[in-house]
Amino acid sequence: MAELAITFLGTGTSQGVPFVACDCRVCRSEDERDRRLRSSILVETEDTVLLVDTTPDLRTQALRHGLRRLDAAVFTHAHTDHVAGFDDLRRFCELSDRPMPVYASPHTMADLRRIFYYAFDGQHAYRNYVRPEPHEISGPFTIGDIELAPAEVPHGKMLVYGYIFSRGGRKLAAYFSDCHHVPPAVIGEISEIPVLIIDALRHEPHPSHLSLREALEVSAAARAQRTWLTHIGHDLGHAETETLLPPGVRLAYDGLRVEI
Amino acid sequence: MAELAITFLGTGTSQGVPFVACDCRVCRSEDERDRRLRSSILVETEDTVLLVDTTPDLRTQALRHGLRRLDAAVFTHAHTDHVAGFDDLRRFCELSDRPMPVYASPHTMADLRRIFYYAFDGQHAYRNYVRPEPHEISGPFTIGDIELAPAEVPHGKMLVYGYIFSRGGRKLAAYFSDCHHVPPAVIGEISEIPVLIIDALRHEPHPSHLSLREALEVSAAARAQRTWLTHIGHDLGHAETETLLPPGVRLAYDGLRVEI
Repeated sequence: MAELAITFLGTGTSQGVPFVACDCRVCRSEDERDRRLRSSILVETEDTVLLVDTTPDLRTQALRHGLRRLDAAVFTHAHTDHVAGFDDLRRFCELSDRPMPVYASPHTMADLRRIFYYAFDGQHAYRNYVRPEPHEISGPFTIGDIELAPAEVPHGKMLVYGYIFSRGGRKLAAYFSDCHHVPPAVIGEISEIPVLIIDALRHEPHPSHLSLREALEVSAAARAQRTWLTHIGHDLGHAETETLLPPGVRLAYDGLRVEI
Repeated sequence: MAELAITFLGTGTSQGVPFVACDCRVCRSEDERDRRLRSSILVETEDTVLLVDTTPDLRTQALRHGLRRLDAAVFTHAHTDHVAGFDDLRRFCELSDRPMPVYASPHTMADLRRIFYYAFDGQHAYRNYVRPEPHEISGPFTIGDIELAPAEVPHGKMLVYGYIFSRGGRKLAAYFSDCHHVPPAVIGEISEIPVLIIDALRHEPHPSHLSLREALEVSAAARAQRTWLTHIGHDLGHAETETLLPPGVRLAYDGLRVEI
């Protein structure tokens, strides 16, 4: 097995693709790669399985990928498209008969506690309910044999976390699903990283997300060895957008597995 | 067209069916009627389209049914499997260019405001964001040409709403997706109702839900003309459970449309 494997459970924007009741070319496309659930990834080694973000599609994603085990859930931020499936972690608590380690910034953890108070209040700790074991993070941490370093990036008016995944001190991949800018210090942190996964919402600039052009600029500035674009709206059809990309940069799609 | 049409967008329990990582006979079934998204219904006349509850599967359900319009969303209670898709109402606000009328008990509305505060705070009223128009209910009300009467039923330690749908003062259907008991006064309200839709989680009793036997007792006590069972777990396979039901009682399934 590779050192690290990343599986895209979803590559869509907050509304997914197709949009509901949209007749645009991409929303009517029959290319399976144009069908995007809300963005999240699974990060795996032989020993460890992490989920980044619990989208409203988590149950569907877990069934589609035959997920039977999760060692932890890690959060980028608490926008609805990244947390609404939190309750569906319950099944993994039941299967392991253990609480689920949940990693998030203090701000994001506070949002999870507000939204899913019943999971945190200790009054509903049934075997088949979601039972989080909260870990507030502000610096590097380790889950199993995967090292994670959060990196703050601006997403509209918020600061959210991207993550850099390493093993044995070697940086292998970085994930920035939601940001409209990547600060120079973060670019420095991901210099020549083997795999960069980054937000590319659409062609036009957006106050909370990188455009395709801006994502390509980040990729070039970081000299990423391979770049996969994610959190993709319905402006970007898979096949036609792929023709616009420079070497080493590709559009991700639901179900794609990348090995490093 | 019928006086009222009810479409089951989902008939599953909070985990849906199949359960994630479950190898039981029903979860491995290839009968499409054993594939249950989280429970909600669409209630329609020629002039009015209502959604009852916004499950985490709302986007999938809206795409599957080609939903292009919603006049209102009505809530039974605020458990996660009934509200997590609230943000996906955004698309219907965008399509109509109007806020979405949202009907719920004061308690449920307070939960919606807590969870989805950004939708209610007036600070994020963008055209393509969810913009609820809250209506707190405690008695009968009308949406378009559909009359609704809430009926309180116990669901574990909570009281939640079921709804009785009428036109021109004639009761046509009642929906009780989540309850472990139906009080005699409510039984009296739904006496001889043309269509009763009621919680039937599994064979064994449960502290928050009706068992199959209990649901049949409610149906018989109310002398409902037709009864459809919903909010169904993975203990009840569609085909085999149908053989156990008395005349006039059926198991609902995702996509079923009932006309009255």
